[in-house]
Amino acid sequence: MLLLIPGPVQTRPEVRAAAARDYAPWDNDFRVVYASIRERVLAIAGGVPGEHATLPLQGCGHFLVEATVRSFIPPGGKLLIAQNGSYADRAVRLATEAGRTVVALPGPDTRPVTGEEIATALAADPAISHVLIIHHETGSGIVNDPEAVGAAVRAAGRRLIMDSVSAFGALPFSLADHPECDAVLFTSGKCLEGLPGIGFCVARIDRLMAGAGQAGSWTFDLADVYQHALRSGWGSFRFTPPVQALAAFDVALDLYAAEGGQPARHARYAENVRTLHEGVTALGLTPYLERRHQGPVIVTVHQPSDPAFALQPFVDALKARGVLISNFHNTKVPTFRVGCIGAVTPEDIRGAVAAIGGALEDLGVRRREAA
Amino acid sequence: MLLLIPGPVQTRPEVRAAAARDYAPWDNDFRVVYASIRERVLAIAGGVPGEHATLPLQGCGHFLVEATVRSFIPPGGKLLIAQNGSYADRAVRLATEAGRTVVALPGPDTRPVTGEEIATALAADPAISHVLIIHHETGSGIVNDPEAVGAAVRAAGRRLIMDSVSAFGALPFSLADHPECDAVLFTSGKCLEGLPGIGFCVARIDRLMAGAGQAGSWTFDLADVYQHALRSGWGSFRFTPPVQALAAFDVALDLYAAEGGQPARHARYAENVRTLHEGVTALGLTPYLERRHQGPVIVTVHQPSDPAFALQPFVDALKARGVLISNFHNTKVPTFRVGCIGAVTPEDIRGAVAAIGGALEDLGVRRREAA
Repeated sequence: MLLLIPGPVQTRPEVRAAAARDYAPWDNDFRVVYASIRERVLAIAGGVPGEHATLPLQGCGHFLVEATVRSFIPPGGKLLIAQNGSYADRAVRLATEAGRTVVALPGPDTRPVTGEEIATALAADPAISHVLIIHHETGSGIVNDPEAVGAAVRAAGRRLIMDSVSAFGALPFSLADHPECDAVLFTSGKCLEGLPGIGFCVARIDRLMAGAGQAGSWTFDLADVYQHALRSGWGSFRFTPPVQALAAFDVALDLYAAEGGQPARHARYAENVRTLHEGVTALGLTPYLERRHQGPVIVTVHQPSDPAFALQPFVDALKARGVLISNFHNTKVPTFRVGCIGAVTPEDIRGAVAAIGGALEDLGVRRREAA
Repeated sequence: MLLLIPGPVQTRPEVRAAAARDYAPWDNDFRVVYASIRERVLAIAGGVPGEHATLPLQGCGHFLVEATVRSFIPPGGKLLIAQNGSYADRAVRLATEAGRTVVALPGPDTRPVTGEEIATALAADPAISHVLIIHHETGSGIVNDPEAVGAAVRAAGRRLIMDSVSAFGALPFSLADHPECDAVLFTSGKCLEGLPGIGFCVARIDRLMAGAGQAGSWTFDLADVYQHALRSGWGSFRFTPPVQALAAFDVALDLYAAEGGQPARHARYAENVRTLHEGVTALGLTPYLERRHQGPVIVTVHQPSDPAFALQPFVDALKARGVLISNFHNTKVPTFRVGCIGAVTPEDIRGAVAAIGGALEDLGVRRREAA
């Protein structure tokens, strides 16, 4: 089965094999592995040792978003969220329920937020301390550009939080180039091609410690994650980590480096997306995004208007042909979503395009019938 | 290597093998697995379908403690915590930082809290709505008895929260017998012998929904976990789950049933503990707990007073002999801790006792020299 979903992704067998062992997380042999993971993650984020720290957190991406918001923004503090997709909607809810004041900057999920929009919103409200953007919006497939947004944040003297869950490791971003960025966060199971279960916030230490004590949650207190690791002398986690997911991630990071790191991964994913975007267009389907706004992670496609089409039967027909895609959509109009990340090649995508054509035929959906 | 640690535990190869595959968590094939996990967990907890619900949460036990406290006790609300061990200390911190008012009932970590102590504390403060106990205290090895505590809570008309992270599945407990209990919580990687990464709160639905909206955290809002699952029509999780850990847990639950469920697992662990307790005593060491207060999960042993003993070298010497134990202790006096849970038999424990004797000899620690 070829998994074409935006996480958990299809992984390489070496990655999964590392999960099939027992480990003692605090054992000296494992401490070396864990330290190496933290160092490599810091480097991928463009972090500067001593200036930035890797802060691991058990769980999923949403947990990291809540932890980052709580750790960098005080209760009642104000943040601007560029709300142009379903994951931004979730960030708004997470921050609001955590007692922070969200200023939402709504926008369509078909294009990135612009630097001008950010600048205008910040100029209108000097009480906003932080801007949070979703780097890659997994609902639609757009990319919010940290260069454009970061420049506006910098010019306004505010701080940036980058939710890079579904982009990190593939899309270019370096903390060293973004002094306005307090934190970038991401998980093990997306573009770094590990198993899900652990995530990381790479953050400026000075800004992290300036907010120590304000999280209102021990679990989500990233300053405590940092201080606990320091106190331990070996970077210890505070609570039981998903140790098999960590061991698998260690292997995934090796494979990432061997492939050529971010440029190589970006190139492979971009070629996957190009192949898929062109392929479904040739099948008579209509991609949800214009080509220029299409990121390298997922391709969202309008569901055909032919009444013979229904999402679950289409997903089932594709699955019978060996390709598994999401059986739900996160856009306001009916779409289907094909992931292009994970251990997946353009050759795999060519096969998937053929399978999509076949599945449409199985359902009796007429071609050139796109919405 | 024989892992004798209280979680992540040593698992069976069938369990680990299930983690070495890719899964799409919302796929119809996996939905069946996930539904079956929730049902079996409910049954092990003695939950009544329609009256109780299984509420999964990504992450580790501490996350579940915070989520349960937030979901059942309003901000500023008062809970009594029997503080007789290091995990109770952590629950006090978690609840306090989450903005709940903790009344701590301190006690030694060498014996269970008594029903009388709970009754006295509750009589003294009518504003306390809930009592939280650590079922098995992984710091020392004692068991707080839900029968004694539950009776006192019931008599006082208050509610019980059972943190059963390191006990669930081995120690007897049934929600059906404890109408005073709002919630019992536990994780995949302890006595149920799965991999770490996911936990469960099994809770009374009426009590859960009575507190809906009070969590102050979307992540930790268990009422939302419940409602989201209902709305989905198939019990969906809200955010990406650690799907490999879930798949492994499915196999672990099969093996649990095949072994004979809670009575059989309890019997094996109790025999492990008896073997270890007697074995280390015969080696001239002094267990931390009196035999009558010794639970079936871990055995804590006083470190020998001979200056030739030091914990890390001892752990290293044991590891060289194929046995891995914790290289830290959670008691106020120096101890070492040997886990007796996981895919471990009394025969394994006999080997471990011999290895402990050998490791002490390797270090030149004189026998009959216990503290």
